[in-house]
Parts: sequence; C-alpha cells; structure tokens
Amino acid sequence: MTEQFFTLKGKDGSARLGVLKTERFTAETPVFMPVGTQATVKGLLPKEIENIGFNIILSNTYHLYLRPGHELIKAMGGLHKFMNWKRGILTDSGGFQVFSMRDRISLSDEGVTFRSHIDGSKHMFSPENVISFQEAFGSDIMMPIDECVPPESSHDYVEKSLKRTHDWAFRCLKAKTTSQHLFGIVQGGVYPDLRKVSAETLAEGAFSGFSVGGLSVGEEKPVMYSVLEQTTQYIPENKPRYLMGVGSPEDLVEGVARGIDMFDCVLPTRMARTGAMLTPYGKLIIRNAKHKTSDLPVDETCNCYTCKNFSRAYLRHLFLADEMLGPELASIHNLTFLYNLMKNIRESIAENRFEQFRKEFLEKYFSDAERID
Amino acid sequence: MTEQFFTLKGKDGSARLGVLKTERFTAETPVFMPVGTQATVKGLLPKEIENIGFNIILSNTYHLYLRPGHELIKAMGGLHKFMNWKRGILTDSGGFQVFSMRDRISLSDEGVTFRSHIDGSKHMFSPENVISFQEAFGSDIMMPIDECVPPESSHDYVEKSLKRTHDWAFRCLKAKTTSQHLFGIVQGGVYPDLRKVSAETLAEGAFSGFSVGGLSVGEEKPVMYSVLEQTTQYIPENKPRYLMGVGSPEDLVEGVARGIDMFDCVLPTRMARTGAMLTPYGKLIIRNAKHKTSDLPVDETCNCYTCKNFSRAYLRHLFLADEMLGPELASIHNLTFLYNLMKNIRESIAENRFEQFRKEFLEKYFSDAERID
Repeated sequence: MTEQFFTLKGKDGSARLGVLKTERFTAETPVFMPVGTQATVKGLLPKEIENIGFNIILSNTYHLYLRPGHELIKAMGGLHKFMNWKRGILTDSGGFQVFSMRDRISLSDEGVTFRSHIDGSKHMFSPENVISFQEAFGSDIMMPIDECVPPESSHDYVEKSLKRTHDWAFRCLKAKTTSQHLFGIVQGGVYPDLRKVSAETLAEGAFSGFSVGGLSVGEEKPVMYSVLEQTTQYIPENKPRYLMGVGSPEDLVEGVARGIDMFDCVLPTRMARTGAMLTPYGKLIIRNAKHKTSDLPVDETCNCYTCKNFSRAYLRHLFLADEMLGPELASIHNLTFLYNLMKNIRESIAENRFEQFRKEFLEKYFSDAERID
Repeated sequence: MTEQFFTLKGKDGSARLGVLKTERFTAETPVFMPVGTQATVKGLLPKEIENIGFNIILSNTYHLYLRPGHELIKAMGGLHKFMNWKRGILTDSGGFQVFSMRDRISLSDEGVTFRSHIDGSKHMFSPENVISFQEAFGSDIMMPIDECVPPESSHDYVEKSLKRTHDWAFRCLKAKTTSQHLFGIVQGGVYPDLRKVSAETLAEGAFSGFSVGGLSVGEEKPVMYSVLEQTTQYIPENKPRYLMGVGSPEDLVEGVARGIDMFDCVLPTRMARTGAMLTPYGKLIIRNAKHKTSDLPVDETCNCYTCKNFSRAYLRHLFLADEMLGPELASIHNLTFLYNLMKNIRESIAENRFEQFRKEFLEKYFSDAERID
C-alpha cells in the first residue's frame, strides 16, 4: 500500500494541520512554498533554501517552457536534477502568466495561443501539452491549465469560462501518464455560487488536491477573504487546499484561518530585492536613514544567517552601494521569516490556540516596524 | 615573545613558501586574496568565502572611506565585525583609485585632493589620514599611500614621484598608532634602477612587508614580468612580498616564479559576473551555445559547490535568464579555482617541482577551454 499523499492531522476552527508526503519530500502543512520562477529561487543557493528548512518550492511552467525549454530539462534528468533541488517541486501550468497577457491571447476550447515575452514567438498551451511539459519537468505536484478571470468579470462570463476550465482540468487528468500528483484549480471569480459549483465539480475528479485560483488578482482584501471562505467549505476535507500566488504575512494567516494548507508567492524575495524586510512589527525599509548606525539585526527574534551575523547598518550599506549581497541576505531573511511564521502557525493549531496567535500576530504586524527598534 | 608575522619556510628557485600569521589568521603563502571592495566580496556570503578556504581578503580604503565612511565602520566595531569576516583583512590605501582619476586630482607633498565618484564632493588623502582610516577599519595589514605612475611616465617624473612616495611611506610608519601591520609599496615605474632604489630605500623602514605597486597598469606582460623580477631581488628575503592588483592565473604563476608571496585581484569575481569561468584549459564562456545541453560541470577536476552540483547547461540557462544565481555560482567557482591553483603552487614548491608545475599549468591553461570537453 502506498503511503497517503495528504494526511489531515487536526483542526482548530477552520485552520488545518496536516502532512504532505511523496517519495521525495515530507512537508508539514500549512506550508509556504518559495518561488523559483526560472528554476532558481532568485539569489539563493539551493543549499540555503534547504538550510532554512523548506521542503517544497514552486516553479513556473510558462517560464521554463520558454527558457530553457521542457525538452532540455527532460534531457538533463528533470527539473530537480537540473536545478539541484532534491526535495519537492510544485509546478503551475502557465495559465496564470498567459492570461495576464489577456489582450494578446487567442482562446478556444482547444487551448490558448500567446506570444513569448522574450522573443514574441507564438505558442499554444493546451490541457494535454501543459501536462506533457510538467511530466518532462518531473515536478512532484502539477497544475492543470485554467482560465484565471479578472475580478471585474461578469457572472455570465465567469460561468462560461468555468465550463471550459473544468473541461480542461478533466482533460489534464486524462492526459496524465505518470504518478505525479495533479491538483484541480477552483475558479469562479468573485461569485460564491460559481466557486461552489467549481469546487463541487472538481471534487468529482481524481485530483490529489485542490488549488484556489483567481484570487489576489486585484480584488479588495475583504472580497478575497470572503470568496476564499465561501470556496474552501466546498472542497473535500481529506485533500490539500492550495491558495495560489498568495504570501503576504497577513494573507498567510487569513488563508490558514479559512482552511488553506499551501501557499506560494514571489513576495518575500521580490520585496527583499528592494530592501523591504519582514519583521514581527511589519516591513522594515532598510535604506531608511534611521538604520544608518544601527547595530541591531533586522529582527532580534530571528534565527536566520542574516539576523545572526549582520547589522541593519551593514545591510543598509549593501543596498546603498548596490551590492548583490544585499538582496541575497534580505531574501534569506524574508524567506526565513515566512518559514518561521508557518511553523508558529502550525504550533498554534496543534495547541488549539490559532485564533489567539492570529490576533496577536496581526496586531503586532500592523504596528509598523519603522517606529520600533 | 610575539609570534613572527611572516615565516619563509622554503624556496624552489625564486618561488617561495611561507606563512603569514597574526592573532586573527594564518595564511600559507603564496596566497591569493579575494577582493571585497565595498566590504563584500561581490555576490558571496562570507561563509562561502570561508568554505572555499580563504583566510585573508582585501578591501578598499577609497571605497570604504567614501561609503559607508570610516567613522561608521569604527562605530560598528571595525571592518571585521561590520562585514562578518573573522579572518584576515588587508586594506589598500586608496592611492591606486585616486591616481586612476589622474586628470582630476591635485597633488602636493601634503597629500592628494580628489573628488568622489559618488557625489563629486572634494576630499584629501594624506599619509596620516589614510593610516587613521585603516586604523578605524582595524584591518590586519595596511598600505601606505603612494603615487601609482602610468607606465609611460618618464624616468625623470618617476624619480621625483618616488621621493614623495618614499616620504609618504615613512610618514605612514610614523603616523601609525596600533600594532596593525604596515607594508611599504615599491614603485619606480618600468625603470629597474628606480625599482632598486625604491626597494632598498623602503627596506630601511620598519615595514612588515613590501608591496610591488604600479604593475599590471597597462604595460605589456613581458615588461611587467621583467620589472617584477628586477624588483623582488632587492626586497629583503625575510619579509612578505605582495604584488598588488594582479590575479590572472598566468600572472599568479609568473609572479610566484619571481618571488611573490601575496596577490589580490577583482578578476575572478568580475569575470564570473560576465559568465567567464576559469578552468585548467583556460576560460570557458558559459553563454556559448556549445554548452546548451552539456551535463558536464564547468571543471570536472574542481571540488567547488558549483562544479559538484550544477551542469554547464544549468549555468548557461541562469546567465541567459539573467538570474543572480549565475554570477553567484560562477564567483564561487572562479575563486575556488584560484584557491586551488595557489594550493597546487604551494605543494609544487614544497616538493621542489614548481618549474615543472609552471610549465605544465601554463601549457594546459593556454590550450583553450572552449575547444575541450
């Protein structure tokens, strides 16, 4: 008997504690997955990502397909070997990136045609070929192609789009030839009734888990939180739920509160490259003059390489001098911050005090790091 | 009795084997020192520099003085603490950088006035203040300010310049208030007679070692090698000799052959950022199409993190995709290559086979890496 992919270990309100397990990795959930868009988590040696403790990362089919190409990655022994990452990899399907170029794509039941952002060349993504690309990568968890609709889309449009998205998801299931896990992606825009339809329709399929797509794409936060909780309640309890592209500290906490198990986002590394660093008191802008002579670490409670070894004054110097080490150290810190946040969330769920943790964390987090030393 | 700063352990022809030792570090010589211009070896976490094995690095007074400033570094506990580097640091005096802006400086016996490349502000370097800056940094080895003359300078000009450079060196000795080591810098342009005068004059002072300055500044290589060997013969045997700013593989070998013990250069990290990687067969240009599908490491004989874990195909992908990890991995490799080269040089001297090593290394190195797999 093969071991279970996902085990729900406990609940505290709607917050869930679980374990994701494959031959390659074990990840306790709720889990945050760093993003390695082009087969690298920007600026970090893979061993540093392991050092922090991450067991699963995300990479993007759209980017990898265009460069270096799925054939090359397959020829090099798969994505894990190519990028020297031995633990879990989840790949998206490329749908999100393609639909973000909405004005320049051509959409049919067969698939979606788009032009490369690199050289303008024409390409088509279909349910069948995005699965073949992800099989070439050898990712542990794959996503089907889906239409990610803008938040302002009409009920009518979303309803029609949903039919195609569901059709595509089931075609992906059918196209799959390996034991890699495939999730279904719940869409439905900002319409709770359509989210319910989507979750219930996909629940009929042999998906290993369910993603919530089309959120955090421009809608107001209260709308996002509301749609999210009206979505997760219709997803089968025994499967993992993944909120795609969401990863600000407050959204991680609020997502967990609404029953989400998995998250990914470029936020920690993207912020890091601008010198914005996450702390329990909010974002610290390391270029600010107030840090000029500070021998404090960015976050005194943090156990990362950056906080254990470097002062705010040094980090500020690196950013002002435009040194690569600045973004590198800031990325290590921000990723560690999110890793520790998820660890603390899991502990609070295990101890049935998640609501208290949520309240205290958010209160502190919105108190403004720049006002506190 | 304090332990000796430099111990000459053996010779093989003119090549020398020795040890540099202070309270902070022990470095076997001949040694290559990576350059951390702005208090960071570009792109590398300090622990990676330690991992490679380096025990001493170089940093630049000109850059650190302008940004973040010697007062800040002193207030932060010195340069070692500021940049989290626990081993040795040699700082230059800033003379080289200032004299590279020759058309825009004003020179007198007192010192040299220049404008900042960052904001155009006016500054003066004197023998006394460059020592006070380096004392503020707390570097293990300091350099005096000197005039670095262009290779086309006349005998007359160099002779006059030399008097001032010597005067400045002795003023630096006098200005020094700590137990930090101060070297004398031998100048004299391309004129052997002046090089001899310079070496013999400085030999009279209580310098801990002697730098050879003003080479590799535009002169032809045969001229450089010839001037170098006509310089080192006049430097006291019992003191370390440091060839400033030189670090191509062939120059390291040729420098050792002429009695040099210490080297520094930005070459390995600067080359790395363009994707040029050092191998026993010469430079490998990782962007070249021939590496597109190569699952070979850059250098099969190399034990670095990059060569142990990543293919040429992956590195090429990183450079084409403009990912930070490319320069990072290439820098780790190039620095490791030079570290290992110096290790091999030392072994060959210890075993009295340096001439053979030199011949074999150079023959292979100039065979062209791009033609060999």
